[in-house]
Amino acid sequence: MNDYLINKVLEEVQKSLSLKKSDPGNDNSTKVQDRAEQAICHSTGENKTVEKGDNLIEVTPVTEFVGTAIGDTVGLVIANLDRHLHEKMGLDPKYRSVGIVSARTGAGPHIMAADEAVKATNTEIALIELARDTKGGAGHGSIIVFAAEDVSDARRAVEVTLKEIDRTFGDVYTCDAGHIELHYTARASLALEKAFKAPLGKSFGIIVGAPAAVGLLMADTALKTANVEIVSYASPDKGTAHSNEIIVSITGDSGAVRQSVIAAREVGLNILRSMGQNPVSVTKPNI
Amino acid sequence: MNDYLINKVLEEVQKSLSLKKSDPGNDNSTKVQDRAEQAICHSTGENKTVEKGDNLIEVTPVTEFVGTAIGDTVGLVIANLDRHLHEKMGLDPKYRSVGIVSARTGAGPHIMAADEAVKATNTEIALIELARDTKGGAGHGSIIVFAAEDVSDARRAVEVTLKEIDRTFGDVYTCDAGHIELHYTARASLALEKAFKAPLGKSFGIIVGAPAAVGLLMADTALKTANVEIVSYASPDKGTAHSNEIIVSITGDSGAVRQSVIAAREVGLNILRSMGQNPVSVTKPNI
Amino acid sequence: MNDYLINKVLEEVQKSLSLKKSDPGNDNSTKVQDRAEQAICHSTGENKTVEKGDNLIEVTPVTEFVGTAIGDTVGLVIANLDRHLHEKMGLDPKYRSVGIVSARTGAGPHIMAADEAVKATNTEIALIELARDTKGGAGHGSIIVFAAEDVSDARRAVEVTLKEIDRTFGDVYTCDAGHIELHYTARASLALEKAFKAPLGKSFGIIVGAPAAVGLLMADTALKTANVEIVSYASPDKGTAHSNEIIVSITGDSGAVRQSVIAAREVGLNILRSMGQNPVSVTKPNI
Repeated sequence: MNDYLINKVLEEVQKSLSLKKSDPGNDNSTKVQDRAEQAICHSTGENKTVEKGDNLIEVTPVTEFVGTAIGDTVGLVIANLDRHLHEKMGLDPKYRSVGIVSARTGAGPHIMAADEAVKATNTEIALIELARDTKGGAGHGSIIVFAAEDVSDARRAVEVTLKEIDRTFGDVYTCDAGHIELHYTARASLALEKAFKAPLGKSFGIIVGAPAAVGLLMADTALKTANVEIVSYASPDKGTAHSNEIIVSITGDSGAVRQSVIAAREVGLNILRSMGQNPVSVTKPNI
Repeated sequence: MNDYLINKVLEEVQKSLSLKKSDPGNDNSTKVQDRAEQAICHSTGENKTVEKGDNLIEVTPVTEFVGTAIGDTVGLVIANLDRHLHEKMGLDPKYRSVGIVSARTGAGPHIMAADEAVKATNTEIALIELARDTKGGAGHGSIIVFAAEDVSDARRAVEVTLKEIDRTFGDVYTCDAGHIELHYTARASLALEKAFKAPLGKSFGIIVGAPAAVGLLMADTALKTANVEIVSYASPDKGTAHSNEIIVSITGDSGAVRQSVIAAREVGLNILRSMGQNPVSVTKPNI
Repeated sequence: MNDYLINKVLEEVQKSLSLKKSDPGNDNSTKVQDRAEQAICHSTGENKTVEKGDNLIEVTPVTEFVGTAIGDTVGLVIANLDRHLHEKMGLDPKYRSVGIVSARTGAGPHIMAADEAVKATNTEIALIELARDTKGGAGHGSIIVFAAEDVSDARRAVEVTLKEIDRTFGDVYTCDAGHIELHYTARASLALEKAFKAPLGKSFGIIVGAPAAVGLLMADTALKTANVEIVSYASPDKGTAHSNEIIVSITGDSGAVRQSVIAAREVGLNILRSMGQNPVSVTKPNI
């Protein structure tokens, strides 16, 4: 009855096993994605085919497709968003071009990356929404919409975000039982203001732990470590999409915020390890 | 610590592998289900046993059990719902018999199927609720309650719905990164009105994409393809159970709605393919 | 792209397979946990290393760590919760010490266990929040916060809860398609009052079924079995974190509540079996 779901898991396991065997480093899946992106980039109007395992997948280039990133993140751009859709979404009418970054896994890394993108481009943050997702994990997926007068600005914002995500995912540590997540910026911009009411231009840190208690202890540790202030507090019942996280954001002097975030990371990792887990960075730690 | 969950995954994989080996076409699991249904249908008051792998499961017939469908869907009927429960659910007191269709995976296919069922039977839609479920996927599970004065009407509505679900799941395309979903009817009825405020008797289409950005681009494409109107818009923050979807419904001339839905499907499939995925229909495409 | 998630599943499967081969009874994972706990208990201020598969995980003892239980449950204690965090959480200022029990999988078993803990200790229930979690299952994770004037009371409450959870999970029956859950106490205390508005000191039962329809039929059966009253009703849209459950709680004479809960269990198990499933108790049935 649920064979299609069971087969999906099986497929993943088989894919993973055969990747391991034939080609360490996941080159195969990267290859598929690279080709897909090439098919888009060197679009000649013809359909391209992409090999994936034994199947041939036909990829018709879509002009709105910008690229992908870790966490099933997809970046899209719409040059002239339909007027009625625009209205239903409650966007400012002056912006017709939108850039969109949408992910199954991850909200913090995406908001941090988008914050760099708004600093670097002529765009505004039109919308940030969190979904209860993470493919069975304890956290969020997300959708972030950039608004711009010119489509090239929207595209640029999406490109910057996709590139930054690889870095921002470095401070997400996952394991079977949960995850912890740390983010730090010396200067908060519009995405952090929209999502967390971060004070613009100030040092800002985000502390996340799952299951929720882990986040609470991390936040308590952070607040006791240095002279920082709470900006926002979110828990399964308030401010999250019912995710199993406690998310606390802090501000203060640059050194204090950084020190607090590091202290929170250490206690978070040690609690997960005390649970018999081995939390690992999704990419490469920065903080 | 979570061995029972790990074992569950393992069991599925093993079941799936052994099914593949011994008996292509998943006949084994069908057999179990068929027997379970036989046990119910030819109920003689005695307990029956159903073989499942090496275990013997004893199935005691339950008169309220109607049947099952894809997506862990179960159909039940209660001839005379308890008065206090009836009240707590906020149902109209004049209907004491209820038919219930409830699923782990799927809301659109179930609502479309229920819409055919209300057309074909003397029932009303008492309740439609969406759960954030899909077994780790990006979407919804659902519960739909039919109300009827006579239990045989409630049972008939559930039977029609269960039968239709196999068809309506054909326009759901899933892959690891997400899914897209299209639904079209030439004439919307009470289930679509309840769930989406669809105009009764008019052509109606539903467009769903996950992760959410995919749904947004699909909706934008649909609205630009033909002369159709938005009826409803739902996103992770509004109108969904925090699922990672954008769901847009449209109405208009029959040809226009159909054309828009097809255009949305094409762009949705191509975005998922550009992500290196291979979205496939859960059963058999209709539109 | 999602290799880290795929690898996670693979790891679990491999871990599970190798556990089965080398050491029936999951002694290996228990060993890891035991050692982690030893590392904490016999804390000498030094770092300890815990073997897990081929990796060495370094566990730095965290004084706030109390222990773990089934369902990725972790128990923590904070002797003097930061004043600003305390305020953001809306806790009563008179209690500075908190005990926290937080889980990826399970809410009912944790609330029942916490109810025994408040009976046995000098603590109050400061907070109960449910997350939409269960690692891809249909239900809830949870966080429960005990407040106490003295940290030793908070710690004791967490210890009692962690110990009780093994028992309370016995009346949770899971299978791939969903789960059912039953809870019964002869005398409801403060945790049940906080979570379900249970009348203090009275017999109290909780009935849960997923997918939601299963819970509805179980509740209907319970109410028809004996002279009991509904205390609370929750469904995907109201009173849950959009979980795919219907949760009904009942009160009445001790014998009546017990009889109703047993009848609900039987019909719930039989519906899941009729779906071709084999629901099994997570630990050992009590009721």
